[in-house]
Amino acid sequence: MTTDPGSNISGAYRRLEEVFRRRALIGEAEGVLGWDTSVNMPPGGAAARAEQMATLRTMAHELVTDPQVGDLMDEAAANADQLDRWQSANLREIHRAWLHATAVPADLVAARSHAGAAAEAAWRGARADSDFKALQPFLEEVLALTREAGTAKAEMLGRPAYDALMDEYEPDADSARVVSILEDYAGFLPELLDAVLAHQAREPEPVMPTGPFPIPAQRILCRHLAETVGIDFDSARLDESLHPFSGGVPEDSRITTRYHDGGFLDSMMAVLHESGHAMYERGLPKAWRYQPVGNARGMVMHESQSLLIEMQICRSPEFFEWAAPVAGQAFAAEGPAWTAANLYRLATRVEPSLIRVEADEVTYPAHIILRTRLERAMIAGDLAVADLPGAWGDGMVELLGIRPPDDRLGCLQDIHWPDGAFGYFPTYSLGAMAAAQLAAAARTADALIMPSVAKGDFAPLMAWLRPNVHNKASLISTDELLIEATGKPLGADAFKDHLRQRYLMT
Amino acid sequence: MTTDPGSNISGAYRRLEEVFRRRALIGEAEGVLGWDTSVNMPPGGAAARAEQMATLRTMAHELVTDPQVGDLMDEAAANADQLDRWQSANLREIHRAWLHATAVPADLVAARSHAGAAAEAAWRGARADSDFKALQPFLEEVLALTREAGTAKAEMLGRPAYDALMDEYEPDADSARVVSILEDYAGFLPELLDAVLAHQAREPEPVMPTGPFPIPAQRILCRHLAETVGIDFDSARLDESLHPFSGGVPEDSRITTRYHDGGFLDSMMAVLHESGHAMYERGLPKAWRYQPVGNARGMVMHESQSLLIEMQICRSPEFFEWAAPVAGQAFAAEGPAWTAANLYRLATRVEPSLIRVEADEVTYPAHIILRTRLERAMIAGDLAVADLPGAWGDGMVELLGIRPPDDRLGCLQDIHWPDGAFGYFPTYSLGAMAAAQLAAAARTADALIMPSVAKGDFAPLMAWLRPNVHNKASLISTDELLIEATGKPLGADAFKDHLRQRYLMT
Repeated sequence: MTTDPGSNISGAYRRLEEVFRRRALIGEAEGVLGWDTSVNMPPGGAAARAEQMATLRTMAHELVTDPQVGDLMDEAAANADQLDRWQSANLREIHRAWLHATAVPADLVAARSHAGAAAEAAWRGARADSDFKALQPFLEEVLALTREAGTAKAEMLGRPAYDALMDEYEPDADSARVVSILEDYAGFLPELLDAVLAHQAREPEPVMPTGPFPIPAQRILCRHLAETVGIDFDSARLDESLHPFSGGVPEDSRITTRYHDGGFLDSMMAVLHESGHAMYERGLPKAWRYQPVGNARGMVMHESQSLLIEMQICRSPEFFEWAAPVAGQAFAAEGPAWTAANLYRLATRVEPSLIRVEADEVTYPAHIILRTRLERAMIAGDLAVADLPGAWGDGMVELLGIRPPDDRLGCLQDIHWPDGAFGYFPTYSLGAMAAAQLAAAARTADALIMPSVAKGDFAPLMAWLRPNVHNKASLISTDELLIEATGKPLGADAFKDHLRQRYLMT
Repeated sequence: MTTDPGSNISGAYRRLEEVFRRRALIGEAEGVLGWDTSVNMPPGGAAARAEQMATLRTMAHELVTDPQVGDLMDEAAANADQLDRWQSANLREIHRAWLHATAVPADLVAARSHAGAAAEAAWRGARADSDFKALQPFLEEVLALTREAGTAKAEMLGRPAYDALMDEYEPDADSARVVSILEDYAGFLPELLDAVLAHQAREPEPVMPTGPFPIPAQRILCRHLAETVGIDFDSARLDESLHPFSGGVPEDSRITTRYHDGGFLDSMMAVLHESGHAMYERGLPKAWRYQPVGNARGMVMHESQSLLIEMQICRSPEFFEWAAPVAGQAFAAEGPAWTAANLYRLATRVEPSLIRVEADEVTYPAHIILRTRLERAMIAGDLAVADLPGAWGDGMVELLGIRPPDDRLGCLQDIHWPDGAFGYFPTYSLGAMAAAQLAAAARTADALIMPSVAKGDFAPLMAWLRPNVHNKASLISTDELLIEATGKPLGADAFKDHLRQRYLMT
């Protein structure tokens, strides 16, 4: 950047757009490296990849923390009346990004990147061997650096460290409100779970399809499902990774899943979930591509889009009306296991279990409540990494009455903490609640949405999501978006209604 | 970078090392994006990828062209006596990189990157459809920008534009010497080719293995071959792309090939070739990783390492002694087509043909001579892109007596020009000559090299290449390296001897 003393005010705003455009492109490049790390990279490449990613992150960080950026923001803010609504919102999001960036010194940014990459690599081995000790020192390093960053951000944002860390994933997140929503669910769960299990016990036992489920056939089915949701594979890929995720850019979505030959529902539901994420990105306004206001609103809204597709829409009787024969054809199978009613019962089976990503939607929040409690304690310095396996086991017993037999099925199951993503987990369950709220509003607004899904046609659903969610990007807050789209701010009511409706009344 | 007025001279050199370390890491990130573009990217991602790559290139360029770099180089050069031999050579290579970077303005760098990415994408379609017109405007843009860059570099380096462009790929390349070597071969070829074809006609006709050659079996075979050369797949991948290449970093080599189910020799030889490139990178000194002096010497030496493996070592009777039964086993095949002698005859079959990468080593230089003539004319402004298909056909007739029936088999076959790599082609044949020279010296130095290859053991060969070629990186020039390793500067003698020996005397 060079200073141009003759520049007018709108010039200052334009120059900020240039800085953040470059930052976004570095972020996209980093995204390609991250995708490659999870999908392709041989183990020997980990150290070099960590250096590469740390370099990109450092450069993006330097770009935003350049002292001129502060001056340009002041100049642009002083003449905010020259900006339209989107530009004003963009300036607000630029300021947010600047706050986060300037709060943390460059060497800490690089150290977090290094430590995260090293811990992620260690986690892959530790998880496979169920060997927590192999991860422990790496996770301790990540936690120490995350706490340091949290303290720095807390000071800058004037909010508690855990809130400041959450803010990276969900802007303006308030941990008091989050904890109150989640702990309320923790109180609501025991009675609901008993009722659901009792109700389920009165239903016919679902029949497990017996396979075989050859992985090539699963790949073809998953691709077909993603296309049905709206993914066009001229501008997307479907690959495999240890933990399913959605990455890439709107013009080149990178969805991953994982396959095992013992069943197809897991890979199928993961692809539907990640397709929901990808459809959100693909629906962001092109005019604001590369600018902060053009980004997805936050992880609550992002997760709402994946869970809306996976949980609200695709674990419905209507979806299985279409999907049951499609799946049966994929595996050349038929019989009582392959009816829509049976597959629906399988896909909505409730059972307390150990693995978060395989949990049903009733017990899923318990996994999140556990992680939220533990990560808040770790950030507060009240829980040492060494004590994590024990605390995890105890927490699972308290919440769901089951104890993992080993750490692979316990605290080694998720990539998030090794990756340094503390404050992320709550967004999953808040997303589930937002999804329930949005789905209810969508179904009310267009009665044809579910009948169309029953024919494999997601167009009416997308026609509602595009203007009400995707196209809004970061123009307004999560709550404002929910109020405009559903009439209410984020809350648990619609989610509770949904669970009662699906699991107790049908 | 910040200025530190109190820094001493060795501090200036150290700061240059930091700048170039970052530049190298950006380059590695760009390499991951490039690999992904060729191996994975769906067509819809091309435009966004071009933006990403242009951003990385621009940032790397800005890093080197920062005015402080010039000052730091002056400071370091003024106190060169404080530097050891490797540091001095590093400063020389830093200066070379700086000359190239400062010669071309940043917007031209970005424009070349954009135009190259767009032309590469257009080329993929144009080649598939054999539709030169679909590529023409893109290639015209690339050529115009390359000529602009060539003119700028010519001024800075005080050498002709084509030489200045070649210098990017082969430092200190002298087009007069290059052209004289190549045109000498053009004069030598007709007589040699007649003699080889006559000699070949007196030999038993090789028997074509009839297959089937299932691509999964080819993949397994190719992986085994790469491992035999020395590639360890804990730190490497083997994938598929339209044009085979070798990328990645020493700890994570990315080799590609392409398969067709009509035969296995092409994919096999491509993998051996790319493994030679990868082994060079993997043998570069770790102590100089990320510094210019730690890079491969240039494309002549790089190509010498791939051709040494593919042509000198692996198209030998000794190699097929080991490889023939291995290949037979891979396809569960046996019989007269699968003897070592027959496969060797197939792998050394000489026949003028249209596709460079499938050409035998006798006629290969003709493909290079054609491209060198045409690209020199294009850079000089003596040949318009629109006239390329005609000039290509005429040139093929003159050099090899055959005319391509369409542009797919003609001027659309290579990615290099769409990619903006003018001045690159000559390095292939100069590399072949260096390979012949190095292989002769290696065989003389260690008589066990070829008997070991006959047992699938490449360790003695690598034991000679490591200290004599790989470990030298860019410490000395191509000619100095060849003199130290073979007693002579680069020349065609060893190559001609090799061809006479292999094609006329056995």
